Amino acid sequence: MNEIKIFSPATVANVACGFDVLGFCLDSVGDDMVIRKTDKKGIHITKIENFDLPFETELNVAGVSALAMYNAIDVDFGFEIEIYKNIKPGSGIGSSAASAVGSVFGMNELIGRPFNKTQLTEFAIKGEALASKCEHADNLAPALFGGFTLVKSISPLQILEIPTPNDLFATIIHPQIEIKTSESRAVLPKEVPLSDAIEQWANLGSLVHALHTSDYNLISNSLNDVIVEPYRSQLIPLFNDVKQAALHVGALGAGISGSGPSIFSLSKGLETATKVKEAMAAVYSKTDIAFEVHVTKINNEGVKIIS
Amino acid sequence: MNEIKIFSPATVANVACGFDVLGFCLDSVGDDMVIRKTDKKGIHITKIENFDLPFETELNVAGVSALAMYNAIDVDFGFEIEIYKNIKPGSGIGSSAASAVGSVFGMNELIGRPFNKTQLTEFAIKGEALASKCEHADNLAPALFGGFTLVKSISPLQILEIPTPNDLFATIIHPQIEIKTSESRAVLPKEVPLSDAIEQWANLGSLVHALHTSDYNLISNSLNDVIVEPYRSQLIPLFNDVKQAALHVGALGAGISGSGPSIFSLSKGLETATKVKEAMAAVYSKTDIAFEVHVTKINNEGVKIIS
Repeated sequence: MNEIKIFSPATVANVACGFDVLGFCLDSVGDDMVIRKTDKKGIHITKIENFDLPFETELNVAGVSALAMYNAIDVDFGFEIEIYKNIKPGSGIGSSAASAVGSVFGMNELIGRPFNKTQLTEFAIKGEALASKCEHADNLAPALFGGFTLVKSISPLQILEIPTPNDLFATIIHPQIEIKTSESRAVLPKEVPLSDAIEQWANLGSLVHALHTSDYNLISNSLNDVIVEPYRSQLIPLFNDVKQAALHVGALGAGISGSGPSIFSLSKGLETATKVKEAMAAVYSKTDIAFEVHVTKINNEGVKIIS
Repeated sequence: MNEIKIFSPATVANVACGFDVLGFCLDSVGDDMVIRKTDKKGIHITKIENFDLPFETELNVAGVSALAMYNAIDVDFGFEIEIYKNIKPGSGIGSSAASAVGSVFGMNELIGRPFNKTQLTEFAIKGEALASKCEHADNLAPALFGGFTLVKSISPLQILEIPTPNDLFATIIHPQIEIKTSESRAVLPKEVPLSDAIEQWANLGSLVHALHTSDYNLISNSLNDVIVEPYRSQLIPLFNDVKQAALHVGALGAGISGSGPSIFSLSKGLETATKVKEAMAAVYSKTDIAFEVHVTKINNEGVKIIS
């Protein structure tokens, strides 16, 4: 096998109470990528569609993660990467993670899978760091492993696969505004009240338990972010209206996807998730803010081979 | 049935990363109590053995929780309570919680169990509040439900039963020193670094996952408290020596039990837990600090009827 086409999914990080550690994987939103062995050594980005991203390997997220892996193997050939980008950079649903994961997953398949998924995450972290200026894996882990993941620690890298209840659907709305990463960082406090931190870890412990027991009511009760949302939601126009609209039609919960501006919600069943889509869309439809909205099952597989 | 004898167990609250929310139940350490219906209305403490505690109902933890329940029922009789106290007050293994739980559990049995365990916890919280000056349930919940419990919230009261791996044993050492509750509160910061809070909730989420999956290595990795232990451990002589001694002979983890001074550790298997007992005891044996040490299986049943 000299060429592989893969699907690298979008992901939702943080998931309300799981700031910086929790994430889940989307099913029908993601990038396609082609990875090809070439005689020419090194990593070469040969095609990027839909968005204006750098072709220089060292400046491209997929390139940097590919290079991290390439430097760890000893081969007499190189790789070409084609990126068919569908996840808009800066949307808050793991655009850079999808790129970082796709190249190393595809290369690993082409050379007989010498690396496991945690090792692939280590390489992908280097690409993610190019985009977000810090090493984190809360989008990478769900993109690679699928389902819900908890990044227990970065050093050493420990990724836990949390079970996903069968009937869980996500609705994601992406208002087409730009939030600078620096801005979404700057609004966060360096210190938080101990009482708020306790409430947050009670909710996260509870959410992990709820996912293990498929307790949808408890998932709903646990999806509360008392630490980050009060700050970052101010950067997203009509955030509270969108959230309330989702809850009003039966969403289990809603919150900021990653550092925004996308807003996610989780629902039991496709029917409710579709109502949530309409309710969320209705809020932005009354404004001149352009938006995209997706309904998707939770993707338990993660990045995968298409052909 | 007019009289019942019950065993009300000691408990470990906080459990390293689960400050204020997590707890587990001990098996062979606890109080015995006799609860008896009487013609005389009201709640009457008629016997207290081993420790000098108040007989006045309103000043006694068991009395206050019993009274909270008594005021919620309509009966033409009263209750007598005898307390055979084995858990030393102030030891940090839920002495007041055992008293608070025992009276309401016993009364509930005598009147045909009109209340479920969460409702019993609501009554017991009133007794616990007498001892600790605030309403909390992190010792009450494991004493009533057994096993590991997570108190997701106090208002409304939500208690989650987290599964307990079969081969998990606790070792508890109680150095006979006094730490004032006011002191153990005063050392805690009102605000904590966000980065520490993130590490703490990563560990708690991970511990809940590890308990669900019986992953002893992950239990071990998760038993880290970066928020409270650095402050409160300073109040316990030789805390770090005791902890390191436990880890050195194979304990999965160790930490402060409740607000101390007791120190708990968890081990896989009775053999290791017994080695941990010897290792912990050896540390205090070299000092003139008196101590008690216990090895016990995790108690999955909680408070129970003896006869």
